[in-house]
Amino acid sequence: MNRRGKTFIVSGPSGVGKSTVLRALFQGRDDLYFSVSATTRPPREGEVDGKDYHFITADRFRSMIEEDAFLEYAEYVSTFYGTPKKYVDEAMDAGKDAILDIEIQGAAQVSAKRPDTVRIFIAPPSWEELERRLTARGTDTPEKIQKRLLRAKVELDSASGYDYFVINDTVEQAVEELRAILLAEHCRPAERMDLICNR
Amino acid sequence: MNRRGKTFIVSGPSGVGKSTVLRALFQGRDDLYFSVSATTRPPREGEVDGKDYHFITADRFRSMIEEDAFLEYAEYVSTFYGTPKKYVDEAMDAGKDAILDIEIQGAAQVSAKRPDTVRIFIAPPSWEELERRLTARGTDTPEKIQKRLLRAKVELDSASGYDYFVINDTVEQAVEELRAILLAEHCRPAERMDLICNR
Repeated sequence: MNRRGKTFIVSGPSGVGKSTVLRALFQGRDDLYFSVSATTRPPREGEVDGKDYHFITADRFRSMIEEDAFLEYAEYVSTFYGTPKKYVDEAMDAGKDAILDIEIQGAAQVSAKRPDTVRIFIAPPSWEELERRLTARGTDTPEKIQKRLLRAKVELDSASGYDYFVINDTVEQAVEELRAILLAEHCRPAERMDLICNR
Repeated sequence: MNRRGKTFIVSGPSGVGKSTVLRALFQGRDDLYFSVSATTRPPREGEVDGKDYHFITADRFRSMIEEDAFLEYAEYVSTFYGTPKKYVDEAMDAGKDAILDIEIQGAAQVSAKRPDTVRIFIAPPSWEELERRLTARGTDTPEKIQKRLLRAKVELDSASGYDYFVINDTVEQAVEELRAILLAEHCRPAERMDLICNR
């Protein structure tokens, strides 16, 4: 493969089905790399270092911040989470597209550092359907579900600068749209001009 | 279908195989409209009005220019050619994507009038391959082929403002990329935000 990979951010509200869509997207695709975050929290039972997270110390995390070794990072209740540049860059050098499953604030950090990053927002087909999906999970109280719905609406407002909106009506259709976006973005002039002019 | 269609311009140098690719793209796709040009030249044997061209008089063509009824038009050796707005708009209102097979100058006119038009350039995998294809057609002298090659290089330089470059290495791959671009462009924020907010 002589093309270089690109970076794609995939965001979306809780309950929209992003994980299911991403799992389906990755099926049979060894030209995609799913970015694994680094974190300072200890591994939970069954979690594998380098697969679920890169588990690192707070000291190491801080020195990585100083080395500008993250594409984005954030702190939640004294725990750090971040996207190391290293693995993303290695994947792209190997011709793979790097998929970053991160939130809107993280996406803004990545875009500021790398404006050529493509941002995709997974949206629900309707608010009623999102409420139905959140209820069907059976993990949240009605109050919590209403909070998640409100947050989803705020997120959608904040996502107006995203490049693409994929509506997760069915998983098949959402994956088809994601695949189309990935392929279309490899037809952009910058990449193709190099290809044509170098031949 | 509740989505509105979009307009896509497809340009490419002589011999690149654009007609073959477009024919393959349209197979089984009744959600696409192939824009038929208007012309002042008389029909040739076998040409059907409204299918090959809209055959109109020079007077009619001139009054259509005055009415701003063309997306683009040009004059070649006393013959006028143009893209009537009417059929493109009707197709888009019916939810179909309108595909305009026009040259770079025409594309610039369309983009000036309608900046949301998506421009796609079909490029050869290499100059050697384009020369091979032009030679294989058997319709041109070696001098004419060299002229076409030179013109193709000038066209590629002029096409740097295009949105996408599809490399016609194989017809299957080129069609897959075209389909991906069409689908991806329907995931753009403007269109999707309306959809989400109206539900």
